[in-house]
Order: sequence, then structure tokens, then C-alpha cells
Amino acid sequence: MSSTAGVPIAIGPADPAPTLLVKAVTEGGGTVTDLDEAHGFVFAGPVSAFPERLPANVRWVQLPAAGVEDWFAAGIIQAHPGVEFTSAAGAFAASVAEHALAMLLAGVRYLPEQLRATSWRQEEFYPHVGSLRGKTVTILGAGGIGRALIPLLVPLGTRIIAVNRSGRPVTGPGIPDDVETVPADQLGRVWSHTDHVVIAAPATAETRHIVGAEELARLGPTSWVINVARGSLIDTDALVAALTAGSIGGAGLDVTDPEPLPDGHPLWTLPTVILTPHDSNPPHLRLAAFADHVAANVARFVAGAELLAPIDPARGY
Amino acid sequence: MSSTAGVPIAIGPADPAPTLLVKAVTEGGGTVTDLDEAHGFVFAGPVSAFPERLPANVRWVQLPAAGVEDWFAAGIIQAHPGVEFTSAAGAFAASVAEHALAMLLAGVRYLPEQLRATSWRQEEFYPHVGSLRGKTVTILGAGGIGRALIPLLVPLGTRIIAVNRSGRPVTGPGIPDDVETVPADQLGRVWSHTDHVVIAAPATAETRHIVGAEELARLGPTSWVINVARGSLIDTDALVAALTAGSIGGAGLDVTDPEPLPDGHPLWTLPTVILTPHDSNPPHLRLAAFADHVAANVARFVAGAELLAPIDPARGY
Repeated sequence: MSSTAGVPIAIGPADPAPTLLVKAVTEGGGTVTDLDEAHGFVFAGPVSAFPERLPANVRWVQLPAAGVEDWFAAGIIQAHPGVEFTSAAGAFAASVAEHALAMLLAGVRYLPEQLRATSWRQEEFYPHVGSLRGKTVTILGAGGIGRALIPLLVPLGTRIIAVNRSGRPVTGPGIPDDVETVPADQLGRVWSHTDHVVIAAPATAETRHIVGAEELARLGPTSWVINVARGSLIDTDALVAALTAGSIGGAGLDVTDPEPLPDGHPLWTLPTVILTPHDSNPPHLRLAAFADHVAANVARFVAGAELLAPIDPARGY
Repeated sequence: MSSTAGVPIAIGPADPAPTLLVKAVTEGGGTVTDLDEAHGFVFAGPVSAFPERLPANVRWVQLPAAGVEDWFAAGIIQAHPGVEFTSAAGAFAASVAEHALAMLLAGVRYLPEQLRATSWRQEEFYPHVGSLRGKTVTILGAGGIGRALIPLLVPLGTRIIAVNRSGRPVTGPGIPDDVETVPADQLGRVWSHTDHVVIAAPATAETRHIVGAEELARLGPTSWVINVARGSLIDTDALVAALTAGSIGGAGLDVTDPEPLPDGHPLWTLPTVILTPHDSNPPHLRLAAFADHVAANVARFVAGAELLAPIDPARGY
């Protein structure tokens, strides 16, 4: 508290460093220095630009990616056994969760059709304006995005069912105890309780077409399906069929299959589709989110506390 | 807990009573009975249908309106001095707050333009997709709607400035201590800190055109103006000018001036306007919200606890 100089932290590879990152380091209690004097190193560039050998004074490296397979593949983490590496895991989830909420609320509030109106159609619109209050939102995937979305949905009066692989209760800041967690192998039993679905699970062989014709048939005419994960998790043909038939309320898609979605695809013009071209986490928001993560981790590093998103060299992530 | 029959509550005037209300009374711990046996009376009709004289067994009446001027004007409350009356004040705010959030998020996430797209315009859209995180939302009016909106905005990482007449700190469930409250007579000093504005204040002589050319000029090119109160609170011509010039990001309007908005008005076709025809609280959601309020008040009546939204005959509201 009485010291004026903070813990020395270097920022690379751009020189000068982005203002947002300088501010983040300073806010966290660090002082921006050269790499050969730094105890911490915030790296905001690609794998190819990482220094071959870090000086011995560096004890902690903050990498800019949430998934760090490439950094292991390049041998960067293995080359520095005495250095603690942290990833940006979790940092980018908030923006995607906000996007999912925006699409879900826009759909439930009937905004797509209302946006097309050019005259006062109040009586016609009344029955179509819905609410999330008292509705059950099933979130497929309880990773960073799912865990960031739950605290946004709770104050709207929703019930939440989280589906993850293990079925272990989802916990985290702003996540109430009464969130029901269902293991993925029992997914079949959630549909009869589900009003809306948000897909936020990784793309794997098991999650391919996790929402297909059968699942869509269990939803109702006011149900919205939101996908902020990967296009392959939805059976696109089955989705187009359900949307065309009106058997579901609509779909909010930040990802598609195929992606990019080709011109002329029916998803472009179906009236109950909100389609955004995989822009839920645009570059300028990524940098801002990374800066927030850096500020939090610098503060922890300065305090000698456990760092966020530590990388385990033995496990490879 | 061991009794099977609950406290006797009548529902009027429709016979049979709406299922939602029967369910609400039962959930609250009441049993639906005839009026001449009831201790409580849930009334869901117009002033003109209220019984001239309630039987002496009735000790509490739940009225269906948030504002009860008409019920005083008809002498209904004064005619029953021994009976406690409650209004539905606060019950209908949640739906309007949800609508305001839906419009604000849709605007910030650039959904209107993205909804019009028929090809993959990711690079073009990237810089326009914004976030509420770290932004300041100024809420004009800290009544039921404003107080219901704050807990929805807080988990999105917003800062909130609430403007009310007195400047007394806004409190309530889900409202953090660090919400800044500014008295309306110092409104001028909030604009330089404001990213987005939500108008949720009553229409009075003082609030007419509370957002006009001068206020709009203080906002920036990504600022959204949301109005869920009354059309007269915005200077419509000034708003159209700001939207046309692109000096603000956009407007989400559930109310207009004039209202209904006539065909051909520029607000119908400006690309950065989300216009809904005063449908943020449609009849079916009003009934559901009233049922929730009834369930809560029956539970309080059964428990002998203080009732929600008590009417004070001396004050007239």
C-alpha cells in the first residue's frame, strides 16, 4: 500500500503495448517494465511471436488464448518448467453469454416480427410477446459460457437445467444452489420440462446433432433454440424443417453448419431466425475481456494468491 | 402443515374463476370458497363489477390494478373501513423491465441490422457488436420498472445511475448498494457518464421531453435510448433528427408520441429503431403476473404477515 512501484510486469509482443493492457497491469498493482526485469509476462501475440527463451527473472506468463493446444504443440510451456503459465480460459465467456441472452430475449419478446412492422399492430402482437419468467431454460454444456449465462437468466425468473458430461452440480459466482444438473447420458429426460434450449457445449463426436429432429419435436411452438457453440451440434435440416413448420418458436444462431452459411440458404430468410455470423465475441470485445482477465491475474500475482486459469503441464491444458 | 383445508378465499367476479387464480390461491395456502364464507377476496374484474357491500367475514381484498384512483373514486375502499385492501402495485413491472432489457441488448448487439442480412457479413459486423459490460446505464425513474430492471442489468457488468425525484438511494431486492442515485433536478450532470438511457418515469409536466435535443447531443454514436414509459418523455422530432444523423446508436421504443404511431412516420423505417406497439405488458402476461402477486399475498395473509402493496385509505393510494 505504501510502495509506489508495483510488481514488474512485461507486456509483449507489441511495442508499445496496447493501452488497455498497460491499464490492466497498472490496475492490478503491477508496473510495466522490460522483459529482462519482469516477474510476470503478459503475452498478447501469436505462438510464433513468443520468445524462444524467457529470462530467469520471469516467474509467471499469461497467455492470450482460452485453449492452449497450440502452445503445447510448439513446446513453449514445456521449455519453461520453472514458470507458471496461465491461459485466458473463462475470460471470453461473458460476451458470448450476453449474446445468447440477447438472442433469446429478442426471440421471446417477438422482436424479429416487430422489427419488420411498419404500422401499429398491437392487438395482433399481444399474444406473441412472451416472457422468460417461470420458463425453464436448458443449457447444454456447463463450461465457461454456460456458467456465465446462468447468473444472467436467474434474475429474469427462469428455472435452469444445466446439462454436462458428469452430472456434477454446476457451481460458480451467481449460480444458485437450485440449478438442476443433468448428466449428458440422461439428456432425454429434460425435454418434457424444457421451454428454451441454449447450446454451449464443445463440438465432439458425442455432441454432433445433439439437437435433431427428435429433440426439436419435444419442444413447443414458443420454444427458442439458441446456438452459440458450433454449428454441428444442431441437425440443420431438421431445424429448417421445424422452423418452416412452426413447431418451434424460432432459432438464434451465432454459428451454422455449414459455416460460413452460403448465400441463398433457407436460414437467411426464415422469419423466426436470428442469425449472427459468429460475431458474439468480436476482436474488440476479446481484447477488452483479456484486459479484465489480466487485471485480475496481476492482482492475484501481486498478492501471491492462486492465479486464474492455471495451465497444468502434466495434463496439457 | 397438518391441516388439509386452507384459509377460505373467494375469487370474483368471473364464475368459474380463472384457473391461474385458483392455482395461485391454492399455492398460497388458501382454499377457494364462496364470498359469504371467505376471509380473503381476490377481485379480478372492473370497478363496476365490485360487490356493493362485502359480507362481514371478508377481512382482506386484493384488487387487480396497480393504480387505484378509480376504486377510490367509486367509493369502494371508503365503504369498507374494516377491510384491508391491497393493490397490484409492483406486480406488472417485471414484464416491462424484461422488455426494456430485450430492446437494449438487441440494440447493443446490433441485432436489427444483423436480422436484415442475407449473407455472411462477419468482418463488417464485428466492430458494431457491442456489450453492456463496463457500460453505464442511466435509468430515469426509480419506481417499480426501474427497480425491477436494475437486478437484470447488474449481472451483465453494467454500472447503474438511477434518477428519481428525491435522490434518496434506491433500494430493493437484487439492488446493490453501489447504485448511484441522482435527484431529477441534477439530471444535467449524469449525461457525461451515461452510455445508455432507459426511460421509466411517469408522464408529468416536469418529465415532458426530459430527453430532448440537448440530452441526445450528450450521448454518443453507440448509445441506445430505451423508452418503456410514455411517448411524451422524449422529444420525438429531436430523436428522429439524432437517429437520422447517426449521432446516437439507436432507440428502443415501446411507447411513442403520438400514439398509436401513424403509418408513414419516420420511426417506422429508421434502421436503428426497435419499435414495439406498447405491448411490453400484454394481457396474458398481466394475468400471469397478477396470479404470482395473488399467490404471494395469500401466503402472507395465511401466515398473518404484512401484505404486499397495502392501500392506505387516508392517503388515497
